[in-house]
Amino acid sequence: MKGPEAKKGATATGAKIPRTERGRRTLRALLDAAADEFGEKGFHDAAIAKIADRAGIAIGSFYTYFDSKEAIFRALVRDMSRQVKEHVVPTILREPDRLSGEQAGIEAFLDFVRHHKALYTIIDQARFVAADAHHDHYQSIADGYRASLDDAVENGDLIAGDNEVRAWAIMGMNVFLGLRYGVWTDDGDPSEVAKAASEMISSGLSRK
Amino acid sequence: MKGPEAKKGATATGAKIPRTERGRRTLRALLDAAADEFGEKGFHDAAIAKIADRAGIAIGSFYTYFDSKEAIFRALVRDMSRQVKEHVVPTILREPDRLSGEQAGIEAFLDFVRHHKALYTIIDQARFVAADAHHDHYQSIADGYRASLDDAVENGDLIAGDNEVRAWAIMGMNVFLGLRYGVWTDDGDPSEVAKAASEMISSGLSRK
Repeated sequence: MKGPEAKKGATATGAKIPRTERGRRTLRALLDAAADEFGEKGFHDAAIAKIADRAGIAIGSFYTYFDSKEAIFRALVRDMSRQVKEHVVPTILREPDRLSGEQAGIEAFLDFVRHHKALYTIIDQARFVAADAHHDHYQSIADGYRASLDDAVENGDLIAGDNEVRAWAIMGMNVFLGLRYGVWTDDGDPSEVAKAASEMISSGLSRK
Repeated sequence: MKGPEAKKGATATGAKIPRTERGRRTLRALLDAAADEFGEKGFHDAAIAKIADRAGIAIGSFYTYFDSKEAIFRALVRDMSRQVKEHVVPTILREPDRLSGEQAGIEAFLDFVRHHKALYTIIDQARFVAADAHHDHYQSIADGYRASLDDAVENGDLIAGDNEVRAWAIMGMNVFLGLRYGVWTDDGDPSEVAKAASEMISSGLSRK
């Protein structure tokens, strides 16, 4: 599939590169507006005119940034992947060890989900609207996770094993805890949920 | 939302009750045809006429079983939940202990996914088409999982803890391993994938 990334001068999010600070602010406003519009209406019913309107710009200006509804949708998926990582990864790295890092990471993810409930709607829609962007979203998160598990095995913190399987398993765990405790309900203390899940990853459930 | 389950005489899958063996076979053929049609075309582009055609019945007969495209879609989601459970749960129960049961369950799920690739497409679509059916699908699997964890804690096989969190975490793990090793690729030996995941659940990753 030929995505906007193929365009000369495309940014990492697939938007055309804004040359000014004002342009970068408008791009940010467009992506936030797109999250609201796609999150509420879904891809098919969402309209470029509404996105421009929510962002407070003229519809003609929209095309300075994106060529189509699909282009801004793809850019939004990449932007959300990046936002999740920027919210979660530094929290993990601040912790002194792997277990507390894991716990802090899950808690940070639950916090992110509670404040960005459109995340799941948009990523799930991507499966149908832009399958490659959907695939890349999860693959890039899994790759990052796998690399951190490889490091932890290397450092002697974790026992050696199939870190590809572990990365996908832990990502799935986080996604479903986010669905249960972030999207569907706000019940459950994120810190307690994160503690229960990270203890399972760290020490397992078996009575030794 | 008023679903077909509200109808008098509805079965557990939301279809009207077939009174004959032939009727039950036709219902089965309709659900299998619906899985193919919704899996390939998606809900919006799927057509009742095509489902009837794939099932080898006249379109008029379709309405003996379901009132609408949404009704058969909802019935299909419930049917798939049931099929997953019927494929996976007996495999778990055949094993002598929790760890080998966990491993056998993950392996059985990967096997199911490789043979029912439409599962993910249909469940993900349900999020948009029939949000309550999507919710019920995961909630019912999580409830079953939680009950089995409660039993295992009771029996002294597992350490006590928040089994709601654990159930959602393990379900998410299975769903994402199914996506990675069943839907997207057939690489990875299901038995090895299941072993790596079940060992993580059982004993954790930390070097003690």
